[in-house]
Amino acid sequence: MERVAIIGASMTQFGQREDEWILDLLAEGGLACLDDSGVDAADVEHLYVSNMASGEFEGQTGVPNALAHDLDAVPAYTQRIDQTSSSGGAGIYAAWQSVASGASDMTLLVGGEKMTHRTTGEATDIIASLTHPAEYKTGVTLPSFAGLTARHYLEKYDAPRESLAKVAVKNHENGVDNPNAQFQKEIDEETALESPIVANPLRLYDFCPITDGSAALMLCPESVAEEYTDEYVVVSGIDGATDTHVVHEREDPTVMGGVVESGKGAYEMSGRDPDDIDVAELHDMFTILEFLQMEGLGFAEQGEAWKLVEEGHTERDGELPINTSGGLKSKGHPLGASGVAQGVEIYEQLVGEAGPRQVDADVGLCCNVGGFGNCVITTIMEAAQ
Amino acid sequence: MERVAIIGASMTQFGQREDEWILDLLAEGGLACLDDSGVDAADVEHLYVSNMASGEFEGQTGVPNALAHDLDAVPAYTQRIDQTSSSGGAGIYAAWQSVASGASDMTLLVGGEKMTHRTTGEATDIIASLTHPAEYKTGVTLPSFAGLTARHYLEKYDAPRESLAKVAVKNHENGVDNPNAQFQKEIDEETALESPIVANPLRLYDFCPITDGSAALMLCPESVAEEYTDEYVVVSGIDGATDTHVVHEREDPTVMGGVVESGKGAYEMSGRDPDDIDVAELHDMFTILEFLQMEGLGFAEQGEAWKLVEEGHTERDGELPINTSGGLKSKGHPLGASGVAQGVEIYEQLVGEAGPRQVDADVGLCCNVGGFGNCVITTIMEAAQ
Repeated sequence: MERVAIIGASMTQFGQREDEWILDLLAEGGLACLDDSGVDAADVEHLYVSNMASGEFEGQTGVPNALAHDLDAVPAYTQRIDQTSSSGGAGIYAAWQSVASGASDMTLLVGGEKMTHRTTGEATDIIASLTHPAEYKTGVTLPSFAGLTARHYLEKYDAPRESLAKVAVKNHENGVDNPNAQFQKEIDEETALESPIVANPLRLYDFCPITDGSAALMLCPESVAEEYTDEYVVVSGIDGATDTHVVHEREDPTVMGGVVESGKGAYEMSGRDPDDIDVAELHDMFTILEFLQMEGLGFAEQGEAWKLVEEGHTERDGELPINTSGGLKSKGHPLGASGVAQGVEIYEQLVGEAGPRQVDADVGLCCNVGGFGNCVITTIMEAAQ
Repeated sequence: MERVAIIGASMTQFGQREDEWILDLLAEGGLACLDDSGVDAADVEHLYVSNMASGEFEGQTGVPNALAHDLDAVPAYTQRIDQTSSSGGAGIYAAWQSVASGASDMTLLVGGEKMTHRTTGEATDIIASLTHPAEYKTGVTLPSFAGLTARHYLEKYDAPRESLAKVAVKNHENGVDNPNAQFQKEIDEETALESPIVANPLRLYDFCPITDGSAALMLCPESVAEEYTDEYVVVSGIDGATDTHVVHEREDPTVMGGVVESGKGAYEMSGRDPDDIDVAELHDMFTILEFLQMEGLGFAEQGEAWKLVEEGHTERDGELPINTSGGLKSKGHPLGASGVAQGVEIYEQLVGEAGPRQVDADVGLCCNVGGFGNCVITTIMEAAQ
């Protein structure tokens, strides 16, 4: 089967986009990706939109059809992909399937969400509606799962509280060099450690913000990619997997089964192993999640990710730079956009367009986490040259 | 590339399901499909859910992950597919892509919606949120588009008002023999013609009801299908296409571009033409849509579908039986379920399991319309034997 290539990428400014609604954001990201890839809208065969909840946030549904109109891409086939906070990764998987199956020779994937017109409480409640009804009814939200898991992790593996703050400090430092990041400012460890408690032991700086924005990727068969450019990326491995939907049923809350299973699938498909990965974007919605993904993906032994972070292993000049984009922590987390934006960062790293964030990389990985690991998509990309 | 097969199908009772919520409905349909296909939940690799608006109708999101839990299908990969009222057809396309791409060797597609706990006004408004904001703000709903289009069609093609009523009468007659249909009762033409006006010239009996229910299909590569059964169906052609999202921008409102384009694609892929089709399920959300799809798919000349209906051509014993299931009109229209249920009817017709509704058919077609033709998916299925 022919390999699936990515020939263009874009992301909008992430942050509080007061003057734009979801359709404006999607159109901005989509147009920029058409421009970046040199593809004419009329040549787009499938247009996929990763979006969790435009209906809940804005009362607007049917956004993929509206986007086809706004991009002048009619009669391109459209659909919306929702996999909660991993809708973007699910979109990459769906777009990959559309090309690999032969259904489409040119698929534009645009992920986006408009959230900041809602209060943090409202947004948190919309997101919490993805949890199991049995847990949702008790008032459990994703931040509370994160707090409970962080406490358990720190105790079980005798990890210092400071190691979590170091994740936030690193990702904020990377975000400074990302002009599209929501927060382009450094923070120090003290600031993180003294910020207000949200879900003990996690504090404000352990959490990603509420964000508006979109991101986009253009996928096609490798033979078509070669008509457009010499510098493209191939998706060499991709897989997704669920874990127990009821979080409290997990045997060991410090192991995310969806991360482990999707990682296994992606490694197997690509013929790669963790040592081959040069750069990774992990889903740091909460700092603790960066540890869990490092361990689940085999970048660290179980219970030892915090040591690698303390040693600087995952910094931009370390052995395995993680979240060079700034991660969800500083770049922001517009639900449907986030997984796509992870792909945008890895694409830019692999084709050498990451500017001041550039690292030396031929193989990259994205891990996008839905809910509290309820479903996870892992993607491995490689420079074609 | 290996062909994609369907090896099992199910649908729940459609109607007002007072005691069930969306997850109950999806689980009921999913379990019945596992049973019908003889597939163990542990062997499901991808679990796709067609659902337009569980968040808007119920405040519950993340239903695919919850369903994986309820069906004991974890760690199957899951995603939700939303293409408004054609979410079910989009789900068939997505499930087809998952198998054809090699990503999954066993994909369970479950489509469902829970609507009747809302008033008709609330449900109509949730659905209307799929229209273009410029039209939505003026208060335009899908029924009003249908009324305008019907009036235009009747005038332009000099068709009698009675021909629309005949569609309703036929589909109600078919629904009598479908034990899962919402309305299992015949109506006469006079009843349809004298029912209350909803959107002139359309009256109550020109409209499908608000419905709860789910439907499911099991898809896999043909080589895998052969391990399970001798009687299966293959998807020989499938395609989707958008039309202008702003309905009033269409050059001729009696031509649905999405129907024409998706039909062309499905015919081309399957090597079939309209004359090869033995039975079809069309999206009769409004009676007028049955005419537009018959014409767009080449079953009738432009402006002449009404004549074929008057002649009995589309009745169960006619040359091309249409909506043997009862159609959306009498079977009901739980948004995300409807396109899947079309596939269930064609599957049952092709494997000879349609009971009293059985017609002689080797090749069948489904056409699922999103919005007012904003996006349409056409699928051609064939008996494998």
